Amino acid sequence: MSEDRRANRPHHDGSALYVSNSTPELGDSVAVRVRVPVGYGPLHAVRVRSNPDHEPLWSEATLVSSDVDGWDWWQADVVVANPRHGYRWVFIHADDEGRPAGAEWLNQSGLSRIEQLDGEDFALLAYDAPPEWLSSSVLYQVFPDRFARSAAADERPVPEWAIAADWSDPVDPVVPGRSQQYYGGDLDGVRERLGHLVSLGVNLLYLTPVFPAASNHRYDAASFAEVDELLGGDEALIRLVEEAHARGIRVIGDLTSNHSGHLHEWFRAAFGSPDAPEGDFYYFSNDAHTEYECWMGAVTLPKFNWKSAELRRRFIEGPDSIVGRWLQAPYSLDGWRIDVANMTGRLHDEDLNESVRQQIRRTMVEVNPDTILLGESTNDAASDFQGDAWHGAMTYTCFTRPLWGWLSEPTHAPRLDWDGSTTTEPWYFTQPIGGIPKLDAREFVAQHQRFTAAYPWRVRLGTMNALDTHDTARFASNAAPGTVPLALGLSVTLPGIPVVFAGDEFGLTGGDGEESRTPIPWGSESEPAVRHVLDTYRATIGLRRDHPVLDTGGMRWIAVADQAVAFVRESVDETLLIVAGRGSLDLEWATDAVGGPITVASRLLGEAELVERDGVWAAVSADSTFTVWSLPGASAPAWGA
Amino acid sequence: MSEDRRANRPHHDGSALYVSNSTPELGDSVAVRVRVPVGYGPLHAVRVRSNPDHEPLWSEATLVSSDVDGWDWWQADVVVANPRHGYRWVFIHADDEGRPAGAEWLNQSGLSRIEQLDGEDFALLAYDAPPEWLSSSVLYQVFPDRFARSAAADERPVPEWAIAADWSDPVDPVVPGRSQQYYGGDLDGVRERLGHLVSLGVNLLYLTPVFPAASNHRYDAASFAEVDELLGGDEALIRLVEEAHARGIRVIGDLTSNHSGHLHEWFRAAFGSPDAPEGDFYYFSNDAHTEYECWMGAVTLPKFNWKSAELRRRFIEGPDSIVGRWLQAPYSLDGWRIDVANMTGRLHDEDLNESVRQQIRRTMVEVNPDTILLGESTNDAASDFQGDAWHGAMTYTCFTRPLWGWLSEPTHAPRLDWDGSTTTEPWYFTQPIGGIPKLDAREFVAQHQRFTAAYPWRVRLGTMNALDTHDTARFASNAAPGTVPLALGLSVTLPGIPVVFAGDEFGLTGGDGEESRTPIPWGSESEPAVRHVLDTYRATIGLRRDHPVLDTGGMRWIAVADQAVAFVRESVDETLLIVAGRGSLDLEWATDAVGGPITVASRLLGEAELVERDGVWAAVSADSTFTVWSLPGASAPAWGA
Repeated sequence: MSEDRRANRPHHDGSALYVSNSTPELGDSVAVRVRVPVGYGPLHAVRVRSNPDHEPLWSEATLVSSDVDGWDWWQADVVVANPRHGYRWVFIHADDEGRPAGAEWLNQSGLSRIEQLDGEDFALLAYDAPPEWLSSSVLYQVFPDRFARSAAADERPVPEWAIAADWSDPVDPVVPGRSQQYYGGDLDGVRERLGHLVSLGVNLLYLTPVFPAASNHRYDAASFAEVDELLGGDEALIRLVEEAHARGIRVIGDLTSNHSGHLHEWFRAAFGSPDAPEGDFYYFSNDAHTEYECWMGAVTLPKFNWKSAELRRRFIEGPDSIVGRWLQAPYSLDGWRIDVANMTGRLHDEDLNESVRQQIRRTMVEVNPDTILLGESTNDAASDFQGDAWHGAMTYTCFTRPLWGWLSEPTHAPRLDWDGSTTTEPWYFTQPIGGIPKLDAREFVAQHQRFTAAYPWRVRLGTMNALDTHDTARFASNAAPGTVPLALGLSVTLPGIPVVFAGDEFGLTGGDGEESRTPIPWGSESEPAVRHVLDTYRATIGLRRDHPVLDTGGMRWIAVADQAVAFVRESVDETLLIVAGRGSLDLEWATDAVGGPITVASRLLGEAELVERDGVWAAVSADSTFTVWSLPGASAPAWGA
Repeated sequence: MSEDRRANRPHHDGSALYVSNSTPELGDSVAVRVRVPVGYGPLHAVRVRSNPDHEPLWSEATLVSSDVDGWDWWQADVVVANPRHGYRWVFIHADDEGRPAGAEWLNQSGLSRIEQLDGEDFALLAYDAPPEWLSSSVLYQVFPDRFARSAAADERPVPEWAIAADWSDPVDPVVPGRSQQYYGGDLDGVRERLGHLVSLGVNLLYLTPVFPAASNHRYDAASFAEVDELLGGDEALIRLVEEAHARGIRVIGDLTSNHSGHLHEWFRAAFGSPDAPEGDFYYFSNDAHTEYECWMGAVTLPKFNWKSAELRRRFIEGPDSIVGRWLQAPYSLDGWRIDVANMTGRLHDEDLNESVRQQIRRTMVEVNPDTILLGESTNDAASDFQGDAWHGAMTYTCFTRPLWGWLSEPTHAPRLDWDGSTTTEPWYFTQPIGGIPKLDAREFVAQHQRFTAAYPWRVRLGTMNALDTHDTARFASNAAPGTVPLALGLSVTLPGIPVVFAGDEFGLTGGDGEESRTPIPWGSESEPAVRHVLDTYRATIGLRRDHPVLDTGGMRWIAVADQAVAFVRESVDETLLIVAGRGSLDLEWATDAVGGPITVASRLLGEAELVERDGVWAAVSADSTFTVWSLPGASAPAWGA
């Protein structure tokens, strides 16, 4: 039985159905449209409230298409006054004589009788746009020490900092093994496995750091000038990127702009030497330059001081900087993921974050604008992600955490914590709130909406929808039975970049952000259990690759119940109807909600069935399901109209 | 009948009951407390999540007081890491065996099972604090042309721009009368009526602009160097401020930082003269310096270009600047209200707002830190109001607009619009949404909470709770019968600065922001209708002046129903119980919600009665009411505990 037969509601988003130009320049006039269910009226007027220079400005919408598949379409013009130009809709209802009779607002927080927050308005961006390929990317994340060893790895001596492990050894989550356990994966190992990536359908490879360091994670960089010899050095990276490109896979690297390792050549030059050229690269707090600020109190991770002009010159300014040089031949990386982007340049009463991130992107554009820039900001990220620099966020509040809340069923199995103690509290993103919260699907949607409401559409399309990463437990460790396909399906079909953390497609588990850095069990692909998971990944990622509407199409919820959601992704070319339910499913939606004819035979993936009862459509399934149907594109008027 | 018997909920705000030090410095440790109703438990733990440098950091709370008047008090320490240090609470429930069993978050958006936005966290501020007297101010707004004429006014010639009006003429809302109709009120007129202000109980006088201009509103300043001779010149201002100070009333002026008038001496020097010292003060768009940016397209209001160092020097930097000199003897103003603060320094891809507002405040602190700085930002203001410069906002989204929504009953009487056309749509803050929206009390509270959630407590205390201003229709014009005392009561008792727009206390009306600039009907004070309104104002303002808990005390909703609200303002010294209802009232609240003994005899204002029924308290009234009771202070543990 459906628990929420949601009424049709007016809808707008940043997709091409609703916005005539998603890459405008300042001063451009952009036509914007809203679809309004016929039953929502009668309307006295529809208007747009923009907010140029932080002061409201109004434009009038006109009806451009009437009652097509149950929807009216209204259109207005907005002149882009600021690089982020916010706007919202207002619907003014009419009484029997056409006089105004109450208003409702629509922005990214939804439909509301009370007024809405400027920061949650729809937004047109006049900043430089990211490459188009960003939104059609399926990202595959590799943690190099754990992915694959080439034959050359056997010849390399184990470094001093490391505790050697065999590939089949369990990951040790306890210090010192935690960051020192060394499996010896390398970049030629990745290169040799590119066929696996191709077979999965991923087209963007994200490598966690490859620079020399004194840990298995390499976030404590000792240099940014060369690739770690343990990974095969610069030549191995060049080989990997070349072959990946040849196979249609782009590659991005990982930089730490908040800190380096304490063994970094810059820090070693600066430590104890106030007069060194690098003397102002860090926040030293005593004259002797022996005490300093660091990341979360970890003395191995000294924090960069971005007031230093020389640090900027070496690291982020211009083609010869660290940021610039790795994007050029012979390395030719396709972009960067920036670690701890949220803390970068922030300390006490200083905040240089905006200037650092904008400089990073300026350098990238100078070297090669066909590159992407993702920023890690694991909590509420939106304030830094307004399109000026970061193209998308690696964040957990929009998708990952509410998804875990809905679809987890933790066993409270004991696991070892970093200090060797035993805990039965499931790991939850280092938030000490008693483990994974138990949310229902309505709360999943509510948190997703709350944390995406302040993102411009374009940035939302570039934001990572990860089930897990190298910093988290693996989703499968706590997944309720049968929910992995559902979680994966949502990551592939909601707006944003789907993410596969290498190993998830093998069904690996891991109880915290350390244990999840599991070596890939190559050779297990033909085992039935693994093969089943691999097949699910291939089919679901294939859906994304085969249906561009999932890259940039509009996104509209059509039903949300306690344990199920239904939504459409839509363009003029195609509508995908997507239903995800935990447990048995019987989910109805309002007549005309989908906005076009429904054909039962069009199922692309999943086992749920569509049924029509007294003119009302529902999706039904005996078990947890992720099911997708392909339907005709939206009946939107042409933009010339 | 009560429609919402709201359960007791954990509560925290920025008041002294909950925060040990509201004016910390960076690096200080501040103790913060939360009160939790006994019935909300059992709890596994209570924690605080801070967000230093945009990254979560956790501290553990301990129980410091148990089951006093039905409440537990938990306490934690927070080290202030940034000038705005956000934090929120998390409550981790316990199962029968004390293990964690679900969490709820508390920040300024309320209590939530899903995660919350960083921008709506509670916030400690390490910026310079405003003077303490700000939060105990009751502001009286005077529009000089319309307040009172001294005898000297009769001697002054009518200026060229003006259309002379007699004091008893109706205000003309149609151009050209709209801005040219001239009544000839002056500053000695204000001075002669200070006794009226004293009798009302107000203690802060806000004068809209007093500089020479070519309009009755003077927002098109022709100079900032002298007081308009039509108002009596500099000497009249000096006399007014001196006498006001002697009578316990502070005085603030009004500056336009977004634009000047086109007759301003700076603009006249710059217009057509690119090489003038003032040549870069404005945004000229052609080489001849004859085309320029202006406020909302009004050519009489050219917009300042704050990239000009010379503009900054003359206007906002240092004791000799415009901002600085009027705060010093012999003028001795007590602060500024800044017009169109929200647009200041913003144009296209430039945003110098932060640097301009911070420079204004730096200059004020240099000259006299015992001054206040209010900024006009009529819509969603919070992003600019985080405590770095503006002490409070002149804004309509938090209080004024939702109040109108709840308490208006527009007649749709015809009125003249600016262009001479007739309209029956009640004026609603220039928002073309079909007039005043019809909200209930729940929506009033929801909008109030939505738009105050992002203000630090200290800034909220400095923000203006106006029923109306010189830019709006008067509240009374559309007020439902009997609701003026209720609206006034809320403005005086909710956190923030109560505002009396001169004339409201005479019961004046006005259909839009022009008509409301009504000359004060001196001599009508003894008429019964006027006397009744004056008495209401005196009693209600007297409540604020007599009960400091209304200046800085904690604020907690205890019941919200369709047409009624109840809340407490509380400190260790006193609790005020406040009930406001439109129409007949029967409002219950949860046992122990008030948090101490209730004594029926303690009524300070209003006609509602308290009744106890089966251990549950309710307030009842036959008609619309605003009623206040004084109760013992909150049973909070001492800070030494």
